Amino acid sequence: MDDPVVVTYAVRASRDAIDARADALLLEQTVELPRSALHDAGARGRAVGRVARIDPLSSGAYRVTLEQPAATVGDDPAQLLNVLFGNSSLQPDIELEDVALPAGLLRVLGGPRFGIAGIRGAAGVGQRALTCTALKPMGLPVERLAALAATFARAGIDLVKDDHGLADQAFAPFEPRVRACQAAVNEVSARTGRRTLYVPNLSGTPDRLRRQADIARAAGVGAVMVSPMLVGLPAFHALVRDGLGVPVFAHPAFAGVLRAAPEALLGRLFPAFGADAVIFPSYGGRFSYDRKTCGALARALRHPADPLRPALPVPAGGVALERVPELLAFYGSDTALLVGASVLADPDRIEARSGELVGAVHQYQEESA
Amino acid sequence: MDDPVVVTYAVRASRDAIDARADALLLEQTVELPRSALHDAGARGRAVGRVARIDPLSSGAYRVTLEQPAATVGDDPAQLLNVLFGNSSLQPDIELEDVALPAGLLRVLGGPRFGIAGIRGAAGVGQRALTCTALKPMGLPVERLAALAATFARAGIDLVKDDHGLADQAFAPFEPRVRACQAAVNEVSARTGRRTLYVPNLSGTPDRLRRQADIARAAGVGAVMVSPMLVGLPAFHALVRDGLGVPVFAHPAFAGVLRAAPEALLGRLFPAFGADAVIFPSYGGRFSYDRKTCGALARALRHPADPLRPALPVPAGGVALERVPELLAFYGSDTALLVGASVLADPDRIEARSGELVGAVHQYQEESA
Repeated sequence: MDDPVVVTYAVRASRDAIDARADALLLEQTVELPRSALHDAGARGRAVGRVARIDPLSSGAYRVTLEQPAATVGDDPAQLLNVLFGNSSLQPDIELEDVALPAGLLRVLGGPRFGIAGIRGAAGVGQRALTCTALKPMGLPVERLAALAATFARAGIDLVKDDHGLADQAFAPFEPRVRACQAAVNEVSARTGRRTLYVPNLSGTPDRLRRQADIARAAGVGAVMVSPMLVGLPAFHALVRDGLGVPVFAHPAFAGVLRAAPEALLGRLFPAFGADAVIFPSYGGRFSYDRKTCGALARALRHPADPLRPALPVPAGGVALERVPELLAFYGSDTALLVGASVLADPDRIEARSGELVGAVHQYQEESA
Repeated sequence: MDDPVVVTYAVRASRDAIDARADALLLEQTVELPRSALHDAGARGRAVGRVARIDPLSSGAYRVTLEQPAATVGDDPAQLLNVLFGNSSLQPDIELEDVALPAGLLRVLGGPRFGIAGIRGAAGVGQRALTCTALKPMGLPVERLAALAATFARAGIDLVKDDHGLADQAFAPFEPRVRACQAAVNEVSARTGRRTLYVPNLSGTPDRLRRQADIARAAGVGAVMVSPMLVGLPAFHALVRDGLGVPVFAHPAFAGVLRAAPEALLGRLFPAFGADAVIFPSYGGRFSYDRKTCGALARALRHPADPLRPALPVPAGGVALERVPELLAFYGSDTALLVGASVLADPDRIEARSGELVGAVHQYQEESA
């Protein structure tokens, strides 16, 4: 028998009801029948896992750990999501807390192809934290976005990503935009000798994603970004496995529709499906993740289960430039710090503010070396 | 200027804070910059919509109605989700309440290709409600599932769907399973002269979905089922638009509940992306939707915005056979009633119980005619 898929949920139930609730949850995720209607011993043997543990949580809820037979997944990324949190995502007394996939299934999924080491290699950055900022706002024409990319490159930023809302809008269509932004960072690099990776956002239906990936590769980009929940995790996985050729940054847009712990969805599933780096809203910004969640998320990315490569945490989401030392102390150097609005606040000081971001990261590295 | 995308959210904020919160939400979904950093008038004009209304809700929260420029979507299904609920899905004070897409965008998406009338035509059912049940449990081998399909067909069930957990598992692989189940209902139909549609579940990465659709069509199935949130809404949309050829039933697995109203996600977006029928957990079953939500969802499906066809509501999720008259009174006859576990409870009475489902629907129709 293969190792099982281990899934942990937080379940709100009374002490009297939790055993039955945990068993119902177990059955809901695979056979979708109560035990009273589950007559076939063969089906029970093949498709019914077991409730491995029930532990009380301080919140009064219970942590329920299920072991589901790996064979129920059938090596299908979509069906994996279904076994983990398909029907139960519709039940408000359940939250997905954590996921541990067996090594065989992780090998099938493949995980990050580049990971932290591959991104460091592509960006030419050894030990220190990486600096990252975003091309925005949506609505700017191609030449303005390209000029902004050049500004960031001159300031020495490592990673210049598209805002994830940049798609294929008429006011800045994908192909000319990506070519112009890549050409802009190339031109600066040729002068300064410093590398800056431009990271365009891919978005759309599966065919459109592939066309965009072809265009991006042909333009010579060093990495790409995708929002796995917007395009769908299985479509994301297929794009990555079909030979993307460059590291992929995962953006969390649309990930909050699920009642799933960020550590599980962004920290475990995004990299298992192929993300080399995962962008997430850091504590203290304009989103709600707290320090504990952010720490757990970063740890999950850096310390995956065998045989996956470590993925790069990219805290973001309203990070102020002034907080860089604090965030580096918290996240450590295996991190890319994504600072967007804060370097764009004053149109006359974008290059200077970007340089301050670069300087703060270098300074922190020297002081902590 | 094209008509805007109109989006409604429930936003928790104090009376003093709601105006600023609504404006921040507006900006978060497109330009991702605060007004203080939004210097370019062109970008503002192209990408920034407006807060159309703020109405107090009885819960103490506010209903915020935004109008976003349709051009920000770029006719991309993934980017549409992003404009509606990308970053804001990560903010716990926000819930997506409703969506109204402009006719131009609905035409691009296309909506249901068959809808209620097309499904009635395929099933050969005129006025009455349709009957539906499910092949389960996962874990049964192909021949047992096919035998069950034959049993349901003999009882006169209109729609026999796979459980949505039936994927491509080794114990019942997709191709032989779909062929055997379709052959089983064909054989019964040849004898009885009554039609039963077998509705296999498609699951996987985009390529796998297409291969499965080819196999299903070659086997002669009358409809298929897909879980749009498992495979990803844009991948679902691409599958449907690429010529599926048969009606598609959408399953709600992985759709979660807490942060997006079911009426919006299942009632508006699933059909806009191409669902002909939408399965949802009915009130009074083992899920949490209440009567009001279920009624609103069914109304949204039957009365879409122009130019979409009406889609078929399929209440399900622990519906007991004994509740059929009550549910028909509530949902009306433009409905497929999906009763699964309740007809499978006694292994010796599956055909009899299925016949009772069929009889109850026919009887209701006669009495109400």
